Order: sequence, then C-alpha cells, then structure tokens
Amino acid sequence: MNRRHCLGALALSAFAKPAGLRVNAARLREHLEALSVFGRPSGGGFADGVSRVAYSDADLAGRRYTMGLMEAAGLKPRIDAAGNIFARRAGSDPAQPPVLFGSHIDSVPSGGNFDGDVGSFGAIEVVQTLRDAGIGTRRPLEVVVWCNEEGFAYNNGLYGSRAAAGHLDPGELDLVWNGVKKSDAVRKVGGNPDRIAEARLQPGYFHCYLELHIEQGGTLDQAGIPIGVVEGIVSIDRYDVEIRGFANHAGTTPMPQRRDALLAASYLTVAVNEIVRREPGPQVGTVGQISVSPNAPNVVPGLVRLTIELRDLSSAKIAGIAKQIMARAREIAAQTSTEVDIRPAAHHDAALATAEVQKSIEAACTTLGLKSRRLPSGAGHDAQMMATLGPMGMIFVPSVGGISHSPKEFSRWEDCARGADVLLETVLAWGG
Amino acid sequence: MNRRHCLGALALSAFAKPAGLRVNAARLREHLEALSVFGRPSGGGFADGVSRVAYSDADLAGRRYTMGLMEAAGLKPRIDAAGNIFARRAGSDPAQPPVLFGSHIDSVPSGGNFDGDVGSFGAIEVVQTLRDAGIGTRRPLEVVVWCNEEGFAYNNGLYGSRAAAGHLDPGELDLVWNGVKKSDAVRKVGGNPDRIAEARLQPGYFHCYLELHIEQGGTLDQAGIPIGVVEGIVSIDRYDVEIRGFANHAGTTPMPQRRDALLAASYLTVAVNEIVRREPGPQVGTVGQISVSPNAPNVVPGLVRLTIELRDLSSAKIAGIAKQIMARAREIAAQTSTEVDIRPAAHHDAALATAEVQKSIEAACTTLGLKSRRLPSGAGHDAQMMATLGPMGMIFVPSVGGISHSPKEFSRWEDCARGADVLLETVLAWGG
Repeated sequence: MNRRHCLGALALSAFAKPAGLRVNAARLREHLEALSVFGRPSGGGFADGVSRVAYSDADLAGRRYTMGLMEAAGLKPRIDAAGNIFARRAGSDPAQPPVLFGSHIDSVPSGGNFDGDVGSFGAIEVVQTLRDAGIGTRRPLEVVVWCNEEGFAYNNGLYGSRAAAGHLDPGELDLVWNGVKKSDAVRKVGGNPDRIAEARLQPGYFHCYLELHIEQGGTLDQAGIPIGVVEGIVSIDRYDVEIRGFANHAGTTPMPQRRDALLAASYLTVAVNEIVRREPGPQVGTVGQISVSPNAPNVVPGLVRLTIELRDLSSAKIAGIAKQIMARAREIAAQTSTEVDIRPAAHHDAALATAEVQKSIEAACTTLGLKSRRLPSGAGHDAQMMATLGPMGMIFVPSVGGISHSPKEFSRWEDCARGADVLLETVLAWGG
Repeated sequence: MNRRHCLGALALSAFAKPAGLRVNAARLREHLEALSVFGRPSGGGFADGVSRVAYSDADLAGRRYTMGLMEAAGLKPRIDAAGNIFARRAGSDPAQPPVLFGSHIDSVPSGGNFDGDVGSFGAIEVVQTLRDAGIGTRRPLEVVVWCNEEGFAYNNGLYGSRAAAGHLDPGELDLVWNGVKKSDAVRKVGGNPDRIAEARLQPGYFHCYLELHIEQGGTLDQAGIPIGVVEGIVSIDRYDVEIRGFANHAGTTPMPQRRDALLAASYLTVAVNEIVRREPGPQVGTVGQISVSPNAPNVVPGLVRLTIELRDLSSAKIAGIAKQIMARAREIAAQTSTEVDIRPAAHHDAALATAEVQKSIEAACTTLGLKSRRLPSGAGHDAQMMATLGPMGMIFVPSVGGISHSPKEFSRWEDCARGADVLLETVLAWGG
C-alpha cells in the first residue's frame, strides 16, 4: 500500500473513530530509543542520557531521523525560516485552520531522553496511529517540532516558538556562541535567517495548540496519577539582590561588631524558603545563585550577590510574596548591620491554558479510564508562546522522582503511551 | 657626638632611668610616614594605604629605609639566612641573652600603614630614645624585623619567625610565586637559603620576646582604652563542609520535594553565628568561603562547599562549639533532606603570653598612667612562633573602627606613641 493510496483512504473514513483506538506503545518506545543515540555519550547506553544541544551535529542527526518518521507516517515535513519542522496532514475541509501539536527534540547538555522527545514523537505516533487505522479528520492536523527550545545554545530558549509568535529579541540572530553566529546556526538546520519574518504565524493560524510533555517535577509521580492537565505556565519574577556589609579580619573582629554579608544572605535565603512555604499552593521560590566577596575562610564576607526567583500561575501571588520577602529583608539588614538591596531583574507573564482545552483533555482521560490532575507547569514550554496566538493546552506525564534535565530523567514507557493516547483523543476532539 | 662616644656613655648610665622617659612621638610618626611611601599607590597619599608585599621592590626599599633608621639609632643591622633583620645593642653583661623585640614591615596587598610597622618602628624608637637619653641596660637589647609575616607572597605567612623557630614546612623554599622560587626571593632580600638552618634560634636565645602591634579589631577603640595586654594568640580550628542535596529544576520541583544544599548551608551559617554568640566571651566563628553548584538562578542548588573557622584562646572552648555545630548540622541535614559532612581541615594551637610578661606590661601602663585591658589576639603574629622558644608578651594599640588589612586601617598617632612608651618601659623592666 503506497502513501497516496492511504491518504485517499483517509477522507473516506473521517469521523469514523473506532472505540478503543490507542497508539502503538511499543513503536513509540522503539522510536524514542532510536532517537536517544543522537547525542548519547560515547560508550554509554540509553540510561546515560543525551547531549543534543540545538544546532549541534547530534541535533541535526536527530532532526533527520525525526523527519524520516514523519515521512513514514505519510507526512511531508517542511522547515520554516526559523528552523522549526512542520508536517501537515490534510483534513476533509482544507479551509479550516489545523490542530497544531508537537514539542521539541533538542536537549540540555547531559539531559535526559524524555524532555521534549515524548511530545514530539507522541505527536508523530498520533498521526501514524490515525493513518494505520485509516482515520481522517475534518480539520488539518499539523505536527511541529520546535527548534532550540532549551536555549543552551545562545543562552536564549524557546527560540523557534518565539520566532513563530513574533517575539524574537532585536539582534538575536547576531548572537555568537562557540564562535558561530546564530543566523549561521539557523542556516545549518535548514532555516533561512534572511526571511525570518516568514516564520511568524498569525493569530488564528491554528484552531488549537496541544503539547504533550513530561512533568519534570514530582507531583504526578508522588500522587500516582498518570496524566496532568496543565492549568498554565507559571509567571516568573526574578530579583537580583546585593548585600553590602564590611569585609574584615575573621580573627580580630568581635562578633557584635561584624557586618557579615553572608550571614545576612543566609537569613534571607531561609526567609525566602519560609515565606514561600507559609501559604498553601504550588508556588515555588529559589535562591539558586550566590557570589561572595572576598570569599576567604579568614575574612568576614563584605559583599554578597544572590538571585531570588519566584514562580506561580498567579502574578499577584508572587508579587505578594516578594513584598513579604522585602519586609523581612529590611529587618535582616537592621539586625546584621548590612544594606540589603533587592531589585526586580526579570518578569515573565503566566500563559494560561484555555479552559475548553483543559476540559477536553480531562474528557479524553475519562474516555480512556485514566486518572488526571490539574497542575501548573513550573517550567517554560513552547506552548506559552502559542498561547499568545490561540487556544492552548498541555498534557503532562509523570517524571519518576521528579528528576529532569539529567541523565536520570525517566518517565515510564506505559505513561508515555498513555500521554500519547490522551493527545490522540484530544486531537480528534479538536480535529472534528 | 659620634656613635662610639654615645655607646661608651651607655654603660655609665645603665640602671639610671630618669622618671618620665618617653619616646619621641613626633619622630616615630615622621618615620612611619616616611616608610609609607614604599608601596604607596601611585599618585596616592598616606591615607591610600600600601602594597608592600614581602620580597617586592617596595619591601626591599622599605627594608633599606628601616636598616638606615637602625644605623641612625646606633645599631648595626644584620640579615639572617631567612631574611630577617636583627640589630643588637650591647648590654653591660654580654653573657646575658638579649631582650628581643620588633615586628614586621611587609603588608598585605592594599593594606594599611600600621600593621607591623608600628611595632617595628616602635622598637627602633625605643633604642633611639635610650640612646638619646644615654641609658644602657644590663642585658643586650635586640630589635628584629621579621621577613614575610603576612604570607601574601607564597601564601605562607610568618615565614621569617617560623624559620627562627624551626617550623618551616618541608620544601617551602621551593615554592614558586609569580614565577619566582621562594629561595630566590629570600636571596633577593639578603638571606641565604642554602644556610637556612642557621636562621634557627635555640630555646633560651632570648630572655624575653616583646611585640608591639595594632589590635586589628575594634575592642580597645570601642572601649576607649589605649593599651591592650595580649593574653595570647588564639587557637584556630578550620572545618571544610560539604553539603550534598540534589540539583533540580527551580520551576518544576515542589518545595516539599527539594533537597536544597544552599538552604541547608544557610541554616548552618546562621547556626554557626548563633552558637558562637550563645555563650559570653571573645570567641569568634566565621563562614567566610562558600561555593555553590550549579549556581544558576533557575536550578535548586545541589552541592555546597563552605568553610567554618573558629578561634579562641581556649582550644577546648572551640572544640565544644564545634560539637554543638555538628549536632545542629545533623538536624539541618534531616530537615532539608541533605547530607552535611563536616571535616576538620586545619588546627593551630594557641600561643599563650607569659603571665610575668603580661604583668610587667600592666605595670608599665600603671607607671605611665595608661588604662589597659587584657584581651586575646584573634590574628596570628610572629610572637606565636617566639612563644615556642621563651617568654613572650604583646602590646596592642587601638585600631580605629577595628579596620585592618585595608587602606582605611588607622591608629591614632598618640596611641602609637603610647604603645611605644609601654614597650620602652617593658624593655627596661626585662633588660635589667
């Protein structure tokens, strides 16, 4: 049976979904395992993780393999000007905007084999399953694999989806990383930086955007729930903190006379943790980066710089938490005879998932007999860019132990398949 | 009056100290100001501090100026094999061991003009004052200016006094710093590394060792007391701490599931401070150095290394404090789901000042009508090496604001002169 024959069959079977349709779990696993060799540490196995940083030779090889799978599923992949891979399957009504779904296949250095990959290959598996079952849809279906989601190349993530949403930074294509200009890297993966504006999608381009992804946190795993219905991608506020004390001899400076910047920083770090945890909810707060001067065992620290990062779906909630932290910082400054200066450094708006999409994901879970739970995404995703263009929803599957961005990242194969099943149901619900 | 004539007069006037003998405060200041140009930042003034790191050209020039002052005071300086400068004034009984007194003139980079200098030039001023007054002593008097006290060259302080006490590290002369071997640096200042063993002084070499120094802390300044009688140089215990948590995504890792090594380090830093301050006394404890991994704003810190340094005259006291810190560390580890590993990294014994010497310094203060207070020295000094060879005592003068190892280091000129007066009285008491 050649491909044309099959595509012809599609139109005939549209709207005729057999009950109990499922993706091929074994095939999805096989494809994910095959992808894992591109960027695998030499001599290692699947469990040793992957370094498939965007634009690397490993990324290029992974993209070629991915496009091969698309072709095997009857799709004709095309690379847009930004380097994103799109592959559209016709619907019975070509005038309709497509259901767009996918993720990314680039990784962080020494990352795992699930982050992005499950959503990208889950999307291709959905199309392959529909093809195998001879099922068509009214609306076109479009699989997308975004370019450079992680941002470890050029320190600037969500690049492909930002290009599609018209959110590239001015001069971004002139960035240089490892001696290579970003525009040249985009060319390497088949993009065309000179026509980057053509990568931009107009609002209304898609009927709905769906993304399957691993949770990367441990909420689902700990609760024993296979599917997460994402409420949205959190708002992020980052603050840069400078604490000015006075560097002095650690032997000769009596305790009451010290102006110890690291002691103040320690009180503040404890306070951030306590204030964030004080009220119920999934909000998080992190002091992740710190530098100390002079940083010698025998000198009372005189200067500390640190970062505070707060995340929650509600911008108002983290703004309220920041206020409490600042009030506590004033007390700490007085108590330690230091100056504590807290300045807003970055703000990212939350991207809420569309209520109707969340409901249809839950309905899909009900159909499939799978438990689900609503939860926010603490990490950023390409979906947050698509939320600026139209209805958006995300499906999470559990990360064992909540570990991600690590070779130890793992999601059970049956959970990956369940996630793809939910994607399949939701795609059909929105595909009409 | 030539020098020989003056030396002849000395013997005659021995034991005949006139009441109210004082050093020449104006001359002491003038000499200290003159020394400050060697290593002064270009275009700067006295208040801009000094960088007279051991073995530098500035150090060499400062040593030449110092030896000139010794000669002007009727002394014949000699440089020992380690590069220390000794200058002996004869006593009426040449069979007696000398009263040895002095300090150092090398500085830390961007240091002040009082640390070491006051004690070195105070010692020369004492001899000059005795010469001017025609006063001799039964025992010889010997001024010493130790080489490389600060240890900023070769990262290895108290070098000269350690050589004299027979405490050099094996291979120390082979150390290389800025491309120069230490043995060559020692040659540069007139020492002879091939005969370094000859620099060693035998126990009993001196009748008593005295050192005038700035406090470097703020105890005397805050109390408004001009003279500190040093009880001893503190014991130092340093611990290297490793805290192992788990690095994870700062967005996706719920607060209760975190194993945040920096949070644990912050609790520990606060605990060190609180435990050290819990009981009265001058003991100090410092977390001065910290490194965090991965140290990124959006990653929960997985690994922290830090140092804990504890100082007190009583080794038992800081050992007890360390025990309490370790007990608290176990609670912190349990509370934060981290492993906290505290290992002893260095121990320095306390060097107690000889009781009789402390008493004679106090008697000198009484004679001069100066208030004094006993206190420990939190910083290390050449005197701690001399304490291994015979009776030792130290005289402190106030450091304004407790600032040292900084261009802002300052001790009032009248306090410097008072310290030298106390040294003079004490030298005479021990000189017989």
